[in-house]
This record gives sequence, C-alpha cells and structure tokens, in this order.
Amino acid sequence: MGQRYETISFLSDYGTTDEFVGVVKSVIRDLAPHVTVIDLTHDLPAFDVRAGSLALARCIQYVAPGVVLAVIDPGVGTSRRAIAVEVAEGAGVLVGPDNGVLASAVAMAGGAGRAVELTNADFHLEAPGATFAGRDLFAPVAAYLCCGTDLTELGPAVDPALLTPGLVPVARDEDGVVVAEVLWVDRFGNAQLNVDPASIEHLGDVVSVSIGGDRRSMPLVGAFAELGPGQFGLVLDSYGLLAIAADRQSAADELALGTGSEVRLAAAT
Amino acid sequence: MGQRYETISFLSDYGTTDEFVGVVKSVIRDLAPHVTVIDLTHDLPAFDVRAGSLALARCIQYVAPGVVLAVIDPGVGTSRRAIAVEVAEGAGVLVGPDNGVLASAVAMAGGAGRAVELTNADFHLEAPGATFAGRDLFAPVAAYLCCGTDLTELGPAVDPALLTPGLVPVARDEDGVVVAEVLWVDRFGNAQLNVDPASIEHLGDVVSVSIGGDRRSMPLVGAFAELGPGQFGLVLDSYGLLAIAADRQSAADELALGTGSEVRLAAAT
Amino acid sequence: MGQRYETISFLSDYGTTDEFVGVVKSVIRDLAPHVTVIDLTHDLPAFDVRAGSLALARCIQYVAPGVVLAVIDPGVGTSRRAIAVEVAEGAGVLVGPDNGVLASAVAMAGGAGRAVELTNADFHLEAPGATFAGRDLFAPVAAYLCCGTDLTELGPAVDPALLTPGLVPVARDEDGVVVAEVLWVDRFGNAQLNVDPASIEHLGDVVSVSIGGDRRSMPLVGAFAELGPGQFGLVLDSYGLLAIAADRQSAADELALGTGSEVRLAAAT
Repeated sequence: MGQRYETISFLSDYGTTDEFVGVVKSVIRDLAPHVTVIDLTHDLPAFDVRAGSLALARCIQYVAPGVVLAVIDPGVGTSRRAIAVEVAEGAGVLVGPDNGVLASAVAMAGGAGRAVELTNADFHLEAPGATFAGRDLFAPVAAYLCCGTDLTELGPAVDPALLTPGLVPVARDEDGVVVAEVLWVDRFGNAQLNVDPASIEHLGDVVSVSIGGDRRSMPLVGAFAELGPGQFGLVLDSYGLLAIAADRQSAADELALGTGSEVRLAAAT
Repeated sequence: MGQRYETISFLSDYGTTDEFVGVVKSVIRDLAPHVTVIDLTHDLPAFDVRAGSLALARCIQYVAPGVVLAVIDPGVGTSRRAIAVEVAEGAGVLVGPDNGVLASAVAMAGGAGRAVELTNADFHLEAPGATFAGRDLFAPVAAYLCCGTDLTELGPAVDPALLTPGLVPVARDEDGVVVAEVLWVDRFGNAQLNVDPASIEHLGDVVSVSIGGDRRSMPLVGAFAELGPGQFGLVLDSYGLLAIAADRQSAADELALGTGSEVRLAAAT
Repeated sequence: MGQRYETISFLSDYGTTDEFVGVVKSVIRDLAPHVTVIDLTHDLPAFDVRAGSLALARCIQYVAPGVVLAVIDPGVGTSRRAIAVEVAEGAGVLVGPDNGVLASAVAMAGGAGRAVELTNADFHLEAPGATFAGRDLFAPVAAYLCCGTDLTELGPAVDPALLTPGLVPVARDEDGVVVAEVLWVDRFGNAQLNVDPASIEHLGDVVSVSIGGDRRSMPLVGAFAELGPGQFGLVLDSYGLLAIAADRQSAADELALGTGSEVRLAAAT
C-alpha cells in the first residue's frame, strides 16, 4: 500500500453550468468517502491548456498535500497519454492528461519524481463512450490514490523527462525595452505580465508602457488604492509579478488587454 | 430510527450569483454537521423542470449513496406537493417537489420504494414567507433524513404510482428517417440527441443529418479529435447517446442547435 | 486556547472564474484540515461593499456556528483595518475588512462582543505583493481561529463602537406614500424592497406602485404562482420583506428595476 491522501484539489475547464464537476465529485465520494475535494477553478476557457497550466502554477504552492486533478483535455479519447506524476517525495501527486497542463506546477513543486501512464483499466470506470475521461479515468484514479493505491499499480512508468513540457512565455529585451506579454486577466481586470519587478528595476519608479500604438507613463505601486481615478499603474501582484491595474476599475477593459497581448516597458523620458 | 446517510447530492436552478445555495448548505450544516454536500449543478435554466430532470438522470448512476436534493420548483408556495422517494431499498432517498424533476432519476435507480408527502412541519424551518422552500422545507428534511429520521415521520405515505411522471421525449421513425430531438447542449457545444447508437446502426457509419433545411453527412466517431477542422460528427457520448459534435469548437453554435431542436437522421445517399 | 470551530462560511466578490476562492480554501485546508468551508456566494459585484453587507445579513441567521469570512475589500493593501469581531458570546467570529461589510450581520447576530485588528503577522502568510489579503491574511486568520487561537493573539483590541457602520437604506414616508428602494434583485428577477409588510398594512391588499413615471396596481400575494401571466405583485419574500415579483418571469427585467431603484407605494385609488 502506498501513502493515503485526504485532499484532492481539482481544476478543469468543465464550467459549472453542466453537472460534469458534480459527477466527478460523486465518483470520488463513492470510492474515497474520506476525501475532501477543493475546487481550484472550473471556469478556465474551454480547451485552453495554457490557461490551465498557468492557473495551476499560481495555485500549486498553496494547495494542501494530496492529489491534484487537472482536467483540460481537448485530446480526450485519442492516444494522448493520461498520467500521474509524483512531486515533493510523494507529498503530492498530479493527475491529468499529458498535454502540458501539469508541467509548470510540477516544476514549481520541485520537479517530477515517479511518473506513470494511467493504462490499468482496473482503476477506471466502464463507460459507454470515451468522451468523459474526468469521470471514467481521472476521478477514479485520484480516488484510488487517496485510498493508498501505489502509482506503480496504475500503469507503466514513464520517463518524467519525456512528459509534455509547459509553454510559459518569457519576456525579452529589445535594446533596453522589455517586451512582455499578458499572462492572465483576472475578474477585476488586472492584467498580469510575465515580468518580475527585479527585471525592470533599472527603468525607475515610473515606467513608459506601450500597448499597441498607445503609450502611457505608469507608476509602480503596492496597492490598487494608491492609483487615482482613471490612472493606470504597475502593481506588484500576489504572485510576485507586475500587473497593469487601476483602482476599482478594469484596466484590461479600459486598455483592451487580453491574455497574450504584447506590452512594451521602457524608461520614461 | 431509520438509516443514516453521509452525503447529500444537491441540484437546483438557484444559480450561484445569489446566496441561495450557501444558505441551503448552512441549514444542512447546522442540522447534520456530519454530512458532505456534493453540488451536482445549480445553473440549470430557471424554472426548467425538464432540464433538471434530464441532468439528474445523467447523474444518478454516479451519485454516492445518500440523499438527493433536487430543487427546481416554479410552483413554490402553492399546493404542489413536496415529496421524498426511497430508491434502491433505502440506499437513496430523493427529495424535491412533485413536478416531475425526480421521475427519470427514480426510474433509473430502479423505481420508487416508499414515498411520502413532506407535510410534517416539525421537520421544517419557520419562515416569514413561503418562497424559499429549499431553505425552509427541503434542506431541513434532507438533513433530518441524514440524521436517521424515518420517511414515515415526515408526512403521509403517497402512492408512488401517482407521482408526477417525467417527460422524456422519444425519437420516432418516419419511413426510415429517425426524427430525434436535442436533449442537452453542454458547455463545449455538444448537442446530445435522444438516440442510442443501436437504433441507427442500419444507417451505416456515415449518416445524413438534417437540421431545419440544412443537410450534411456526419461520420460516427468515438472521440472529438477524430473530426477534422470544421467537420461535424456523431460522437458516442459518455451517457451512451449520440451527440452532434465538432473538435474544439461548439457544434451547437455553428449549427444553431438548442435544447428541443429537431434533428432528422437518415441513410446517406 | 480559545474555542475551536468546525465551519467557515465564506462570502466574497472573487467570482469563480479565477482560482481565488480555491486558493483561499487551500490555505484553510492546509492550516485547519478539520474545517468545512461553506460558500455563501462569491459572485457579488466586484468592490460592492453594500451588496456584500446585505447578502451577509440575509445569510447570517442561517450560518452554522463558527467563523464567517467576508472578503469584499476594495481598499486592500491600504491602511483600512482588517478585523475580527466576536458575536453571540463567541459562538461566531466574523472576519473581514473594516469597511462596513460585516456591520449589518454583526447587528443581526446580537451585536459585537470583542473585536480586534488583525495586525499580528505571525498569523498571516508571507507574500510578495499586498493585493490578495484573502489568501495572505484573512484565510490564515480564519483557519487559526478554528484551531483555537484566541482573538487577543491576533492583534490589539478595537472598540466595537468605532467599527465602520453598515449603510442600510430605510424607506421613508412622504404624505402617506412609502418611498422605498430596491435592495436586491435575485436570479429570478424578484426585486426585494426595504419594506416590511406591517409598514404598508394601511395601504390595503392591492397597492399602487410607481416606478419612474410608470404606475401600476399590484396585489399582495404569498406565492409567485398566485400571479397571472404578465401580472406583477408584491410577494412576502423569504426574509420577511416585500419583493416586486412575477410568475416564472423576471419582474426586474420587465420593469427595468435594479439595485437602488426608487419605488413608491401608495393606496390604490
């Protein structure tokens, strides 16, 4: 018997309008009634592996020890691999499709320990169709892991070095201009950039920010409320990255920023 | 004392914008702190008993043993009956209004055992108005059932044969054409039909599908990813029914399909 | 050691699209694994302290004993105080920013007992930025309270009389006309007024209701289904207030009512 777990942290693009999340939790409840499921989020854009990977990376240092279940799975029913990856010497196991959704979180958790492909159908549910792997494959595997099933029973070992990597865009320097990208726009309209404050320290406390043809000066601030009405700023966000923000107003809406938008940061002149 | 239960599986049209679901769970937590509530979904269209009935039928074989609480209740505050229905020799009890929302699930769970009308106010909360039966009647009844209250204490027996039946539309044959209906459009835009694959086996592997005046050939496939870009197909879905689908794209949006849309399936020519 | 608690009832404007709620729960799960978190709602309008205060007041008599966590916090990262307030002789503790969001609920729970400002960083998480107090301050404080940490350890006492009050609009009488306000429009389109039935008893069973320039007669009814198609009425809602409602239809949409709309009630002529 392997280690038992008490918590499954669950992230998906299932939305909450349909009963998908509820059915996955029902399967877990049936097989592993001692487990508490924590919903990280289920409203990731449908099929958006990158958005899921980034959201999971933002969560991972906070999730409780146990199993992480990440189901964003546009290749469901095909030969894409379903995997489980151990991290932190077994304190956690990440379960999901091998399409990159787990990669950044695995890296942030210290890298992959053992990994297996989830091919042993003894730990899956029988189902009429192959379109709901969350219910039929990932949920029962997560539940059995919580009940003490060892990774090795779930399928053959996989070389962790050969798992699909995550794609995290890195900001680049062009003649002193930092060319960055919006990683995420949150509910409040804050646009997180792939820029940590140290990397633009040389630009000073007020930075010239170009978005498309538009160019503005934005101060670096520590709280939204330091910004005046209608003013935009670069806020040090809760993940240690810079976000373009406004006070009680959506900076992303005002500046037409979305995930993937290019933002250029330069010294104010 | 009757049987105790550990799980309440909860489905409603309350949405999640208001605090209705949270208040129902608070009432349950207060009366039956040992219970875990599993949300099946709360975003069913407001007042849509048929949608609720179908969603519950899709869930029922997966829900954990215990109480099912299904509140889609346009007749709240009127003389519509509130009921509890035992299934599977007491392994489960379904609680909700007697308007058909429970009927399909009861049938799929093997049919009704004992049933009662929930008239005993000792097991309800006192409330100023009669508009929130989820909080004042169904939640406390579900909680008391989990604590071992027997069905017979909750109100007078009801003849299960006289409960309001569910309305599940059945596909019909018109001169070799299968006239079907969209039962459900999920978040990903898959349009589930009231057609199981066996019933159209004679039409072959590629089927002629007519929607309104529009007619297309669609292959039967096992996974979304077998479809090419812009192609539509009939996928065997996770409930054993056929769904009109596309790969990483909403078939329902592209083909203007909604719940109740008529779809005609014939042999390709 | 203070009292231990088993339940945290959680309300916020975090929405469910991002992972904010999931991360807060992960922090709680890690620090206080014995606790069940009940989501009241997370879809309050962003930054809307008044809406949060009213929603919490609607919930408070139903929440289970324990900690209430209410995070609507437009002033996050500024000098606004973070507070914990005991109610009901320690049966409950409300935790949140001192911006009025807790005030009505505290009053409804019998008024504040001890209160403290949450300045002791030993009970907070270290974080790179100051924008996510839900995760870094309120969640760990709520978790430690559940583990038996006494209020006095969390920071200096605050005079409860000096906490920011809530702002609940009161209806007024103008020459026999009751000038009321819409407090809340729920998912079903019912528009709750700040009017209890006793205060308009003298107007009779059918009331003249003016909204903008529009004037209609509306009956007082006990259930939505007592209203005919297209008819509007004043329903005694589940909180003991009157709501403008229709049957299986959104009264608010039809009558263009939103939170804060003025509604004038007079005797029908």
